[in-house]
Amino acid sequence: MYVLYHRAFVLIQIAIRNNPCFSGVVVENGSGMLYPSCMKQAPVITIPKGFFFAVAEAAIKKPGRKDLALIFSEAEASIAGTFTTNAVKAAPVQLCMTKIRTGKGQAIVVNSGNANACTGRQGMKDARDMITTAARQIGIQPSLAYICSTGVIGTPLPMQRIIPAIGSLTGSLGTASFDDVAHAVMTTDTFPKIASRTVKIAGRQGVIAGICKGAGMIAPNMATMLCFLITDIAIEKKTLQAALKNSVRKSFNRITIDGDMSTNDTALIMANGLLGNRTLQLTSRDFPAFGNALDNLTSELSRLIVRDGEGATKLVEVVVKNAKSGADAEKAAFAIANSSLVKTAIFGNDANWGRIMAAAGYARAHFNPEKADIFFNNIQVVKNGIATNKDREATREMTKKELTITLDLHAGRASAHVLTCDLTEDYIRINAEYRT
Amino acid sequence: MYVLYHRAFVLIQIAIRNNPCFSGVVVENGSGMLYPSCMKQAPVITIPKGFFFAVAEAAIKKPGRKDLALIFSEAEASIAGTFTTNAVKAAPVQLCMTKIRTGKGQAIVVNSGNANACTGRQGMKDARDMITTAARQIGIQPSLAYICSTGVIGTPLPMQRIIPAIGSLTGSLGTASFDDVAHAVMTTDTFPKIASRTVKIAGRQGVIAGICKGAGMIAPNMATMLCFLITDIAIEKKTLQAALKNSVRKSFNRITIDGDMSTNDTALIMANGLLGNRTLQLTSRDFPAFGNALDNLTSELSRLIVRDGEGATKLVEVVVKNAKSGADAEKAAFAIANSSLVKTAIFGNDANWGRIMAAAGYARAHFNPEKADIFFNNIQVVKNGIATNKDREATREMTKKELTITLDLHAGRASAHVLTCDLTEDYIRINAEYRT
Repeated sequence: MYVLYHRAFVLIQIAIRNNPCFSGVVVENGSGMLYPSCMKQAPVITIPKGFFFAVAEAAIKKPGRKDLALIFSEAEASIAGTFTTNAVKAAPVQLCMTKIRTGKGQAIVVNSGNANACTGRQGMKDARDMITTAARQIGIQPSLAYICSTGVIGTPLPMQRIIPAIGSLTGSLGTASFDDVAHAVMTTDTFPKIASRTVKIAGRQGVIAGICKGAGMIAPNMATMLCFLITDIAIEKKTLQAALKNSVRKSFNRITIDGDMSTNDTALIMANGLLGNRTLQLTSRDFPAFGNALDNLTSELSRLIVRDGEGATKLVEVVVKNAKSGADAEKAAFAIANSSLVKTAIFGNDANWGRIMAAAGYARAHFNPEKADIFFNNIQVVKNGIATNKDREATREMTKKELTITLDLHAGRASAHVLTCDLTEDYIRINAEYRT
Repeated sequence: MYVLYHRAFVLIQIAIRNNPCFSGVVVENGSGMLYPSCMKQAPVITIPKGFFFAVAEAAIKKPGRKDLALIFSEAEASIAGTFTTNAVKAAPVQLCMTKIRTGKGQAIVVNSGNANACTGRQGMKDARDMITTAARQIGIQPSLAYICSTGVIGTPLPMQRIIPAIGSLTGSLGTASFDDVAHAVMTTDTFPKIASRTVKIAGRQGVIAGICKGAGMIAPNMATMLCFLITDIAIEKKTLQAALKNSVRKSFNRITIDGDMSTNDTALIMANGLLGNRTLQLTSRDFPAFGNALDNLTSELSRLIVRDGEGATKLVEVVVKNAKSGADAEKAAFAIANSSLVKTAIFGNDANWGRIMAAAGYARAHFNPEKADIFFNNIQVVKNGIATNKDREATREMTKKELTITLDLHAGRASAHVLTCDLTEDYIRINAEYRT
């Protein structure tokens, strides 16, 4: 199935290259993606200065698929990260959380296909060995190298294949694109997730680029997946950490696919400063521009994750407005977005708003059901708690690929929005057969 | 689909009647079920003295299916109830919650196919009209009659068909069995849920019988479904309420199918005292026997609900033991039991214990993952947080119809168990097409 998806993607890319609506490419450091301007989803990707990439195959995933990746900055960079809040943390997460206190980094090694979680002391040793092997071969201090893993939990890493593959990884540094890295970190993802933003910093054009991977075990209260962000803008490490935390809160922590929180979720950002700007601080005049660009980029990436939710056919935005408090709005929005009954109804194009009311009700948000309004896109299906009998119009909206469900509680002024997707038979198939 | 299931059930019943392994029937008041002794699931049902039943068709569900039922006690009874804690409560729930304060009842009217929830003032008027119509025709005070509804939310009841059908309901009182009532309250249930227990009270044999219906929108923190219990044992109303609350806590509040909590969940028990025993009080010598029988009965009924979980192929008991606190044990058990990833893995016979660790981890129970043990039935798949490599043996256990997942946290002495089922493609199909 993976292989098929992957092949289809490659064929689409080739078709795109030969397509007259293709508008242009930016290639830096050998990186860059080819997408036509008529494709809504993937604009031209710009890569920040001084970053190099490599991918390799260690046969962790099925044969023929890259499963090792390396992101390298030619200059030592500031680094910041957010990590899963799950009490069960994979070895690489535990390691990164300790290392990141220095705020310095230069390389990130990633493997997909195996999460190196629940692997005990051996798992921790394996993670360390991957770091030291890669660092030694690249010629940097091991303290500057980070490691992330994603995939099956509870299986030891095949180190006898990984260590030699790290050799070909470091040996081929600079030959791969950022897009290749996006491909190599995929597990059940059906397409790579990559985006970039440019931002003017004191007259110079800085770049932030990012990739991430989903697509199951996505729930809020942490970084919710693997995400690697790189920028050539100089920014002080605490400022970088604050900016990342803030962006993650508004993007990756606002999406849910199945309500399951992973053991490995990590978002890392490296800022190498090669733009040559004066190092950004929280109080810098240009800091808000950087923050906005980062918000914007992480929002796009988080949207791509939900769009590629396992088995999903629709992107659904749940908006709860006029709640008594922000906490109430969030509770109700997540209860709706995580409800299996709401999500299956969306899959079935059934404007079954009763399930939305029920979910808001068990979320224990404060509201009077007899004042609530519900909308599917701009079709009002509930007014003052009762049906408007616009099911037919609402059903028409539901056949669209994007749906916004709005619940107006009329209980205050707070609001919250959460991105999710529908729950389909394919989700079951993918997850029932994940390890087979 | 319903019709098919129903027909299949009737055919099975007929087959059972003609089957040599059929062991005997108890029929009282025209009620009683025919089941062979070789069928594990449904033992002989005994009906308490003085209860009569009726069913009718008001075309709320699909044509040809009974959707109205009446449970009547020839003597005024003590009545107790537990109700959904959802903030959005259906009109009949709101009404019952007020009426039950008197502790007295004699009749329960139930309709299936329409929940009469989110139907505003009209819904409340409709619920009252159903009660007064039925009470007047039976010849009792409306204050002694109760109403419950289950089915689609947000659609007004078809009162023009219901009111005449109540005429045929009350007119045929005594002609139906308790089993017929169990059939009439079904929505997505594939089989009726009925059970009974006998209990010695001061030398006399009292009876408690019950029916309930599932099978989606099942989550804890309330009665979780409709359940009607009847007994001929005399018991004081506050004692009855305490006994019911305690039993519900240990049975219906310990099951979860999809984590969705309904707007209509109600459990009612009527005790008409026709056994002639001295009225039971909390301090009565025979009260514990009554409590145990009720526990036992509600446990059986709650088990039947999970066994009939929408699309379920397996009954799964999640046991969390040696937790630091009862709250910790419960949080972890419910997180595992509600995890879509755990439930799809069970469907796929995949002993993917990593998802169990991850769920316990995001439940924020206090434990050291490196001390945790996990068992599938009696096969230990995790010892001290790492794999024992018994996946093959565990997979064999998973192909059985009943599975116990035990997570030993080694963090204290508290434990909790929760019943659930797997998550299958049929769940999606049933819920995507529920209203079509």
